[in-house]
Amino acid sequence: MPHRGAQSLRETLRVPLGVSVDLTAYGTRATPGARNGKDAARADTARMGEHLAGLQERLWAAGTAGDHRRVLLVLQGMDTSGKGGTVKHVVGQFNPSGCRIHAFKAPTEEERAHDFLWRVRRALPGPGEIGVFDRSHYEDVLISRVRHLAPPAAIGSRYGLINDFERELAEKGVTLVKCFLHLSYEEQRRRLLRRLDRPDKHWKFDPADIDERALWPAYQEAYELALERCAAPHAPWYVVPADRKWYRNWAVSRLLLEHLRELDPHSPPAGFDVAECRERLLRQA
Amino acid sequence: MPHRGAQSLRETLRVPLGVSVDLTAYGTRATPGARNGKDAARADTARMGEHLAGLQERLWAAGTAGDHRRVLLVLQGMDTSGKGGTVKHVVGQFNPSGCRIHAFKAPTEEERAHDFLWRVRRALPGPGEIGVFDRSHYEDVLISRVRHLAPPAAIGSRYGLINDFERELAEKGVTLVKCFLHLSYEEQRRRLLRRLDRPDKHWKFDPADIDERALWPAYQEAYELALERCAAPHAPWYVVPADRKWYRNWAVSRLLLEHLRELDPHSPPAGFDVAECRERLLRQA
Repeated sequence: MPHRGAQSLRETLRVPLGVSVDLTAYGTRATPGARNGKDAARADTARMGEHLAGLQERLWAAGTAGDHRRVLLVLQGMDTSGKGGTVKHVVGQFNPSGCRIHAFKAPTEEERAHDFLWRVRRALPGPGEIGVFDRSHYEDVLISRVRHLAPPAAIGSRYGLINDFERELAEKGVTLVKCFLHLSYEEQRRRLLRRLDRPDKHWKFDPADIDERALWPAYQEAYELALERCAAPHAPWYVVPADRKWYRNWAVSRLLLEHLRELDPHSPPAGFDVAECRERLLRQA
Repeated sequence: MPHRGAQSLRETLRVPLGVSVDLTAYGTRATPGARNGKDAARADTARMGEHLAGLQERLWAAGTAGDHRRVLLVLQGMDTSGKGGTVKHVVGQFNPSGCRIHAFKAPTEEERAHDFLWRVRRALPGPGEIGVFDRSHYEDVLISRVRHLAPPAAIGSRYGLINDFERELAEKGVTLVKCFLHLSYEEQRRRLLRRLDRPDKHWKFDPADIDERALWPAYQEAYELALERCAAPHAPWYVVPADRKWYRNWAVSRLLLEHLRELDPHSPPAGFDVAECRERLLRQA
């Protein structure tokens, strides 16, 4: 927990609005805010897990009484940047029954027959839920841009469509927490080699990942544009240094905690006579 | 972990086939198989959590390579018997991205316009997934029977329809693990009173639960019929004593572990040349 008066991690990691983004200026091994190193951060992550679960329960409880608020964690990043690991270790701290997790793959034929936000709308969390996107609508301005999967004009128009969509979500009570897991080129190589070293991880490896890696500069540029054009006060982008897994888990937990605390959900009051119910229960044979 | 040669918990808790079920003969505070008490069982549950997550990853990995197998945990039990707690504490040990959890509520208008299995089919886990039903199609022979929500003949025919459905699931590779969380009438009263004592838990309380409780004997009878008529070698019912939460969590974890070990899923072998991929990665600038 930061000390009283310390800068929030949200302020520290948030992409500033209205300026161009240069990802080379953001460290991938940095650990902003985690002052006491790895072991302390891990212990802090576990502690935060309990707070997160408690806040989630209140968010859910409020949802049962008509509160429309919900959270949507969007995870983006290059292969091996830890999107799946974040779901496992950070989202795994929540009660799974209140989570709605969706991993976006290459669009199916049915999905391609609709506009690019169609499948995204179907995967949104309901009131009281914690939604998680492992990849998201941003792929439509990332791989689509780098791999020329749509005409440039179509891709160009998507930034505005995404902004409109995210404004609509915010107005519906969705708190957007968009995290770019910022990995270095070298660390990605280490992680891919480690997957090759472990036969039980071969299923996670796709030789096509090596081809994608050759397009690293184009991807970084596409991310810079996405972060620059689609950061908004109601839909901030956070750049999370991701070379160190313990930091990534700590930082995403912390960002979620800060957002949930700001939401400050409350369990609804009893809509019934508590004393009378107690009596009825005690009277039953 | 049981000692070599010890009876599996599946054998211990499984409802025997072809005999009538008398729930009063099953203890609700018993702890079969958990020989060393609460603290040891809790530690064992945490240890099992790691094995469960490992087996889940292999099940998922196998699913990516065409293995159709999956698990479906069905949780049934009276109010406060701990269905939600089991999801939180037992299912919470899995990687949430490989879980598909569905809580069945009173059917919506759309759901009522279809046959009773329609909404159940839509909530099934996919290959490689761990599915969890918090309540299930069994409600259609439980509350429906007790509350006369359908004509007796319709309800009578549902047992056979459920058996056909579950056989079809088993043939598709679904391992069914059906747990009846067996709670005592007295323990339910304690738990309901505890909810009333805690304003932050009032949202979980519904005065209608007290009316349901008045129908306790009818519910027990409906459960006995369901357990008797719908237990099969490919779709066993387990009676899990549920008055002690630590035992319930231990037992459901243990049942899942035994089933997953029997499935023995394997990560698929690499469908690519590992050495060549390593070289390509090392060659990249």
